[in-house]
Amino acid sequence: MSTTAGLTAWVEREKARLLDDLSTWLRIPSVSTLPEHADDCRKAAGWLKGRLDRLGFRVETIETDRHPILWAVGPNVPGAPTVLVYGHYDVQPPDPLNEWITPPFTPTVRNGNLYARGSADDKGQVFCVATALEAVKAASGRVPLNVRFLIEGEEEVGSKSLTKFLTAEPDRTATDAVIVPDVHMVAPGYPSVDTALRGIIHAELHVRTLEKDLHSGLYGGAAPNAIETLWHLLEALKGPDGKLRVPGLYDRVARPTKKELDAWRGLPIKEPGFRKEAGAKALSGEKKFSFLERIWARPTFEVHGIVGGFTGAGAKTVIPAEATAKCSLRLVPNQRAKEVAKLFEKAVKKAAPKFAHVTVNILTTHDPAQSPIDAWPFEVLDAAYREVWKRGVAPIRSGGSIPIVPLLQQRKAPVLLTGIGLPDDGLHAPNEKLTLEQLWKGIVLFGRFFERMGARRA
Amino acid sequence: MSTTAGLTAWVEREKARLLDDLSTWLRIPSVSTLPEHADDCRKAAGWLKGRLDRLGFRVETIETDRHPILWAVGPNVPGAPTVLVYGHYDVQPPDPLNEWITPPFTPTVRNGNLYARGSADDKGQVFCVATALEAVKAASGRVPLNVRFLIEGEEEVGSKSLTKFLTAEPDRTATDAVIVPDVHMVAPGYPSVDTALRGIIHAELHVRTLEKDLHSGLYGGAAPNAIETLWHLLEALKGPDGKLRVPGLYDRVARPTKKELDAWRGLPIKEPGFRKEAGAKALSGEKKFSFLERIWARPTFEVHGIVGGFTGAGAKTVIPAEATAKCSLRLVPNQRAKEVAKLFEKAVKKAAPKFAHVTVNILTTHDPAQSPIDAWPFEVLDAAYREVWKRGVAPIRSGGSIPIVPLLQQRKAPVLLTGIGLPDDGLHAPNEKLTLEQLWKGIVLFGRFFERMGARRA
Repeated sequence: MSTTAGLTAWVEREKARLLDDLSTWLRIPSVSTLPEHADDCRKAAGWLKGRLDRLGFRVETIETDRHPILWAVGPNVPGAPTVLVYGHYDVQPPDPLNEWITPPFTPTVRNGNLYARGSADDKGQVFCVATALEAVKAASGRVPLNVRFLIEGEEEVGSKSLTKFLTAEPDRTATDAVIVPDVHMVAPGYPSVDTALRGIIHAELHVRTLEKDLHSGLYGGAAPNAIETLWHLLEALKGPDGKLRVPGLYDRVARPTKKELDAWRGLPIKEPGFRKEAGAKALSGEKKFSFLERIWARPTFEVHGIVGGFTGAGAKTVIPAEATAKCSLRLVPNQRAKEVAKLFEKAVKKAAPKFAHVTVNILTTHDPAQSPIDAWPFEVLDAAYREVWKRGVAPIRSGGSIPIVPLLQQRKAPVLLTGIGLPDDGLHAPNEKLTLEQLWKGIVLFGRFFERMGARRA
Repeated sequence: MSTTAGLTAWVEREKARLLDDLSTWLRIPSVSTLPEHADDCRKAAGWLKGRLDRLGFRVETIETDRHPILWAVGPNVPGAPTVLVYGHYDVQPPDPLNEWITPPFTPTVRNGNLYARGSADDKGQVFCVATALEAVKAASGRVPLNVRFLIEGEEEVGSKSLTKFLTAEPDRTATDAVIVPDVHMVAPGYPSVDTALRGIIHAELHVRTLEKDLHSGLYGGAAPNAIETLWHLLEALKGPDGKLRVPGLYDRVARPTKKELDAWRGLPIKEPGFRKEAGAKALSGEKKFSFLERIWARPTFEVHGIVGGFTGAGAKTVIPAEATAKCSLRLVPNQRAKEVAKLFEKAVKKAAPKFAHVTVNILTTHDPAQSPIDAWPFEVLDAAYREVWKRGVAPIRSGGSIPIVPLLQQRKAPVLLTGIGLPDDGLHAPNEKLTLEQLWKGIVLFGRFFERMGARRA
């Protein structure tokens, strides 16, 4: 068996090539939500397939209604445990483009960080785990356990195809542990695992109040304005105190345990630092909960985009006939996505005035996930972190959503939500980055995790 | 002197050519607010200059910081009164383009209506008045009074250049009456004059809550959302009851007199018809006021356009850092635009939460106008309408704003706000139209008005 020192030396030697390889992948704009990037999604999947092929995996490209899934099976190691690695090659749209210091699909190193869309979420982390296997193989001549990769191209758009695949072929993905390197450490130097993820409901609200736009002088005061109707509607759903006004929405919300809350208070992440990293003058939201509880354990309603009326240069004095808001709700453990979607639709319909035609389009619903961390693979992961990072993993939560995790959990194997990202990576935002030191150390960490897993008998 | 019959016969003979001529003018997309149409504005001014040249006017093209003003002086008729015609050759942007049945700058006749941007507001009406002079001249060999045209290209963007011109050269525009054919009849068959216009304040609200967009999973619940901040702000300015929550805003608002309110109740314009014409399922606004009072005599706040966050296809789960609303306030007699602008700014600042950077950009302020209708030119107008439309003019109001009217009123001559448009012309909206029968009859009407004015001695 190789050691941390051996893996570290290998990474040191290969750094330049690895940076080149990852950059090649990051240059492919695999934005899953934009139809014009469908070919790029396929290219990004193809790049990873080539990588896993060379590692000796048997890689299957599974066609779907949208973007292909990769299913890769490593060489068989009889008697050794199996680890399934889940990740995604698709990325978020890069807008607003003008806020990027260097273009989103031109990977650039500045101050030890690699800037590019997808550098942290999630190409960089999938690359880290795959490279860990390369390092292990180089150091000891073989991969000492059974590894499968399940990599999709629709994580950012709701994982519909993967949901279908996992539902249709539950046996194929039997494993001893699932590892999901699509999250970040709670703070630099503080490894962590997520014990819960929020669920998500994507929705679009559309308001129509008139057959056509009207002159605001001739009709203003009596003709219903679609933008105004939309803001009253949004106000009816969420007030300035951050509380959602959707009847029944909080009924199933479980508060974190006292043990969890105590542990969170001890974490090296405090409100002033969080505020600064968020780039906000002050935080907002439900004052009676700590900021960590607000982002990890409270349901939210956010509008991601709004548009209506005349938005060109200059002035146009219309009463707009239509307005639209793109929004989502995040859900916390115990809430059920389909149930909350119904409550939400009901609340919107109730708040809609009689002069307006209001539609709620529920695009996707995903349950929250909770991950018990008492199974043996967590001990292995903890040991690997202690070896490489000189600190064990802290159990935290993530406010984000990985749609497929609840389904992966149904496989009965423990799901390890851990990653080498950092809180300031800028996921879904301009200037997303991966800190290279985290990548290099992460390769050693996952290498040691695989070696330690392989040392156990299944 | 010619008669109604003579003018009518002339119009009958010239119809085809006149329609052709007006269509040529309407084909020029003189959208004043869009910089890319600056040349078109100049072309539209040039077209009208040619028209007035041929009528024997001395036409001056006055250069400004933006779009030229036309100042045209007709042949001198000693001893006869002077009438100043005000109008504008600029038009509103045509968006939303997809709602036009035929393209906005391809004038098309359907069911006796001429569809095109500017057909009613205001090219068609300026054309109507100019053609009336042509008809008078053709019928009797001369124009029997002194006429001046003052035609601008910035009415839809706040009349800045014309304001400057009128302030600098007040004497040049001395006249016995001003006629402003930029309004419409209260109902088909019911001629009217406007006794008041609303003032207007154009403003833009901008909210910034973050340095950059953030991931709504990782920060949602604690990081301030700019769109959400904007809707709370708008809600703080205007509630669902239609009342503006701007302290002091209603202080100077004068209610219409009992005589006015009684007269309005007798008008052939009732709520169901107005609602239908507006294309609304129901009306909105301040319930305790009649719909006519709401559109004619109450201040309003309308948002014309809103934009923020991710508005492309698909989903992007960001907490947006910025959001903008384009809006305006309409003001009623007695209110002072600059004073209300200050109250508005104050109310916005007060409602802005401490985590947000909120800016209010006041773009233009224009006072409301009130026009007493007891001067003799109104009698002349009334007589002309009785002759041509078989009904005298009803004194009504307009909820619209013609920025320059308060300044024209300072010339001491009565300002006659009257026009041959109809309430369903779709001003500022898709499928704007001019009913051709109104145009043909309007030429006779203004012809008779000029002839009757000419018969008076100044």
